[in-house]
Amino acid sequence: MRIDGRDYRTIWLDESGSQDPADARVRVIDQTRLPHRFETLTLDNSDEASRAIRDMAVRGAPLIGVTGAYGLALAAAADAGDAAIEAAYEKLLATRPTAVNLRWGLDRVKALLLATPVAARAAAAFAEAGAIAEEDVACCASIGDHGAALIRDAAEKNPGRPVNILTHCNAGWLATVDWGTALAPIYKAARAGIGLHVWVDETRPRNQGASLTAFELLSEGVPHTVIADNAGGHLMQHGMVDLCIVGTDRTTRTGDVCNKIGTYLKALAAHDNGVPFYVALPSSTIDWRIEDGVANIPIEERSAREVTHVSGRAADGAVTEVLVTPEGSSARNWAFDVTPAKYVTGLITERGVCAASEAGLRGVFSDLAG
Amino acid sequence: MRIDGRDYRTIWLDESGSQDPADARVRVIDQTRLPHRFETLTLDNSDEASRAIRDMAVRGAPLIGVTGAYGLALAAAADAGDAAIEAAYEKLLATRPTAVNLRWGLDRVKALLLATPVAARAAAAFAEAGAIAEEDVACCASIGDHGAALIRDAAEKNPGRPVNILTHCNAGWLATVDWGTALAPIYKAARAGIGLHVWVDETRPRNQGASLTAFELLSEGVPHTVIADNAGGHLMQHGMVDLCIVGTDRTTRTGDVCNKIGTYLKALAAHDNGVPFYVALPSSTIDWRIEDGVANIPIEERSAREVTHVSGRAADGAVTEVLVTPEGSSARNWAFDVTPAKYVTGLITERGVCAASEAGLRGVFSDLAG
Repeated sequence: MRIDGRDYRTIWLDESGSQDPADARVRVIDQTRLPHRFETLTLDNSDEASRAIRDMAVRGAPLIGVTGAYGLALAAAADAGDAAIEAAYEKLLATRPTAVNLRWGLDRVKALLLATPVAARAAAAFAEAGAIAEEDVACCASIGDHGAALIRDAAEKNPGRPVNILTHCNAGWLATVDWGTALAPIYKAARAGIGLHVWVDETRPRNQGASLTAFELLSEGVPHTVIADNAGGHLMQHGMVDLCIVGTDRTTRTGDVCNKIGTYLKALAAHDNGVPFYVALPSSTIDWRIEDGVANIPIEERSAREVTHVSGRAADGAVTEVLVTPEGSSARNWAFDVTPAKYVTGLITERGVCAASEAGLRGVFSDLAG
Repeated sequence: MRIDGRDYRTIWLDESGSQDPADARVRVIDQTRLPHRFETLTLDNSDEASRAIRDMAVRGAPLIGVTGAYGLALAAAADAGDAAIEAAYEKLLATRPTAVNLRWGLDRVKALLLATPVAARAAAAFAEAGAIAEEDVACCASIGDHGAALIRDAAEKNPGRPVNILTHCNAGWLATVDWGTALAPIYKAARAGIGLHVWVDETRPRNQGASLTAFELLSEGVPHTVIADNAGGHLMQHGMVDLCIVGTDRTTRTGDVCNKIGTYLKALAAHDNGVPFYVALPSSTIDWRIEDGVANIPIEERSAREVTHVSGRAADGAVTEVLVTPEGSSARNWAFDVTPAKYVTGLITERGVCAASEAGLRGVFSDLAG
């Protein structure tokens, strides 16, 4: 997608000209610097890939999965022995606990590595990571097409005024390799000429809505308005939201969705006001082992500093942090919550829209459900 | 209540030694500077009182009402003629639209002024404003006693562990003259030795939870933890909240409550998880004219800058603002939302706890309901 009129992906192989996997470097957009600075990071080895995931230079369940895959390829380029691969796998897996795509991407590359002769492993791993990235792009484009049909339906119900869509956090192209999950339908609909406007939840504590989603929509020229996380219920009570679309970091086989903290509150408000609440996801976020999301999805708790401090651009242009709580008050910071399937109108997947239920998911992904 | 071990109220007459109302000055705590700076403002005239309300140096429905009353007294001290009083009344009334206490306090002083000989008006108005302030203190103390009984009940249900109470925004003593509304029960319970812990919603965009409520609780030595506004639903899903107590800026005769934006979302989560959701209020916040809060309570829209910028303390100690959205993205900022009565477990008033319904309110306030 576009930044300053130029097309980017969130992760790509550095073009060194060398065909030797040992020379391979992975480039990513440093998302901790957005929206105030556009900078890229070079990941030279598996440890740097781990750090990029842990420090959220890259984030978003699909992108975490692809970065994990590339991280394991970087490990194999340095040492393709089984022990080194296992160690890198464990380190990468431990970076973030909630998104299941990380395990999915790592498992896929590790299985291939262990089935490949040592001398051919690094090249095979990079090829596999690249294939995962390409599949993610195709998958998100397909989610976009299926979701855009829902937006078109909403537009036809109210001709002459834009469709108002509320989203929470960033499930845009910055959360994937390209297109995004929740935002892909918005981009596809906007490019098809459907009038729309996006309410962007700020998404405290890390403000990924105010920083990343607003940055994406601004770069793509999509009309949008940033609101406090507290505002969505009021908007829905007053008919100012036609539909909600959010992403998910892990989806149970029963259709519960685990997404950025606060998603559950918006789903409750949508339910209370008859506003459709859709969740967009690639099948890689489905955890077929889990039935009860509230009870069984591990919820990451992050540093209290993300709550006590806010990062932004000061009047002098410097990006800096300010303390918003009294010195001496403590804080806690859970990163995700679980929205029970009963509050989800439908799941927008790469194979179409289905009910948020075991039957719905099995109907679309019978080959994956096992 | 205490700041650095010293007792304060939020508003008081400056002790100049003079008995002449023309010399009267009103002092308030400048709440825009908390928690990082403790500073007071002197209000020399009615225009300064209007500005203090509009710029939120003073805020909170009860305190706005008292400040309005003192503002009209300051106007009468400068010019006690009918025209000057009417002009000051209109200017003060226009400062903030949502809290009904402002109109209530202004009406009370204006009625007295117009019924008093001109020469005696200023002194009478200051006496009336002082009486309103004293009544507010007594009223909040009584709310505290009634609410503390609910906390005691919760403590007895789970002996040996603290009662976890979630609150949104600041309905503490800083929102009133003393004690507070939602926080009064907490202070009364804490002073009675009941073990408790408060989850403090940050309350974007102005962060009155993270700044004012946390500051109050820290100053009073009450255990508390600041959380993002997004976190409450997750806590309630996991049994980490025993009850919610919030304030209200306007209460319909049917028990709908209008409070800081985001309150409605917490009420929905409480309802979904069987967590009691109480609203604490003095009877001065009841608007007996209104039946449907969502349809008929005017919701203030404030500057988008409160969403796009966050104020806090920088590393060098300076209190500064940082931009959190991309330059070019717009924002909207509604300050309140309405929680329908069906999601409110009970109203904690100065005369006891009642159902959030017309019957409930009339049962307690039959003399006011008209």
